Amino acid sequence: MPKLWNETIDAHRQAVREAILDATTELVEAAGLRSVTMSQLAEKAGIGRATLYKYFSDVEAVLLAWHERQVAGHLQQLTEVAHQGGTALERLEAVLGAYADIARRRHGGELAALLHHGEHVTHAERHLEHLLEALLTEGAESGDLRSDVPPAELARYCLHALTAAAGLPSPTAVHRLVTVTLNGLRPAS
Amino acid sequence: MPKLWNETIDAHRQAVREAILDATTELVEAAGLRSVTMSQLAEKAGIGRATLYKYFSDVEAVLLAWHERQVAGHLQQLTEVAHQGGTALERLEAVLGAYADIARRRHGGELAALLHHGEHVTHAERHLEHLLEALLTEGAESGDLRSDVPPAELARYCLHALTAAAGLPSPTAVHRLVTVTLNGLRPAS
Repeated sequence: MPKLWNETIDAHRQAVREAILDATTELVEAAGLRSVTMSQLAEKAGIGRATLYKYFSDVEAVLLAWHERQVAGHLQQLTEVAHQGGTALERLEAVLGAYADIARRRHGGELAALLHHGEHVTHAERHLEHLLEALLTEGAESGDLRSDVPPAELARYCLHALTAAAGLPSPTAVHRLVTVTLNGLRPAS
Repeated sequence: MPKLWNETIDAHRQAVREAILDATTELVEAAGLRSVTMSQLAEKAGIGRATLYKYFSDVEAVLLAWHERQVAGHLQQLTEVAHQGGTALERLEAVLGAYADIARRRHGGELAALLHHGEHVTHAERHLEHLLEALLTEGAESGDLRSDVPPAELARYCLHALTAAAGLPSPTAVHRLVTVTLNGLRPAS
């Protein structure tokens, strides 16, 4: 049975949109956020400029949509890591490690700062805080983690401490940062 | 002996400039960075608008000069705290506490983010990192602090972790954040 015409159109539009955002990833990884132009995007995605403008009004709109997709992907990845097996402490360490890796790859500059002020980021951060709070609560109950500080405050501490990964030279240094951050969460002696 | 005319002029100009920046502090504390206008500044500083424009070309120039003075003041305050008496650990705790208090009072928003991308901030942060590195090295040598992570990395960890103070509801919560951050610096068990 053939698909309904509207569904076919929707699927096509969705595929073109994804191709544009995939092209954005390639351009950003090659030369940074600022380097992306509408002409290059059309060429990379294999579509005409006129078609590209039917999907996005300007390069800022592309970057915002791309960033929303990136953030959603990272959140999904972290959620999966949080639900793997192991103790709360082990899962927390895995989530913090994955988050630090993401933070290390983050692009800098004013444009990145602007994107990071978006509502989608606030929403994702809230989600991630709740994910961490659940693990921190579980770890406090089992005695592996400190219970003298509200889990919400500890979650914020973790996320802020790990943004230090952005300037680190190697994965080994990122691992050390995660170890130090996790050490802050242990029961006070 | 009377002062030279040029020195008198310089002293006068400096006093007017300080009065303008003092007026900026009052306006920022009352209603935030975005609320500051040249008209209000002239009125608060007790000078004419024409005079104000001889000192600063626009409100952005005032805010930048004001922010430079704020940052320099904070850096001086933290340096004094770092050179008080006590063990390296005690002095480190005092510096981190003072820094967290400053971070808590920081103004948010895009304008603040823009000011914080200034060169004077980078310079001050580097200075502060060196201050912390010296205390961290001393603490590692005395065995109070961990020695398995380079002091430069630990200093960055501290500064990032403490930016979490910006969203905290009370001085008690800020104190807890300092305790947790400091706990991360203790020797690994």
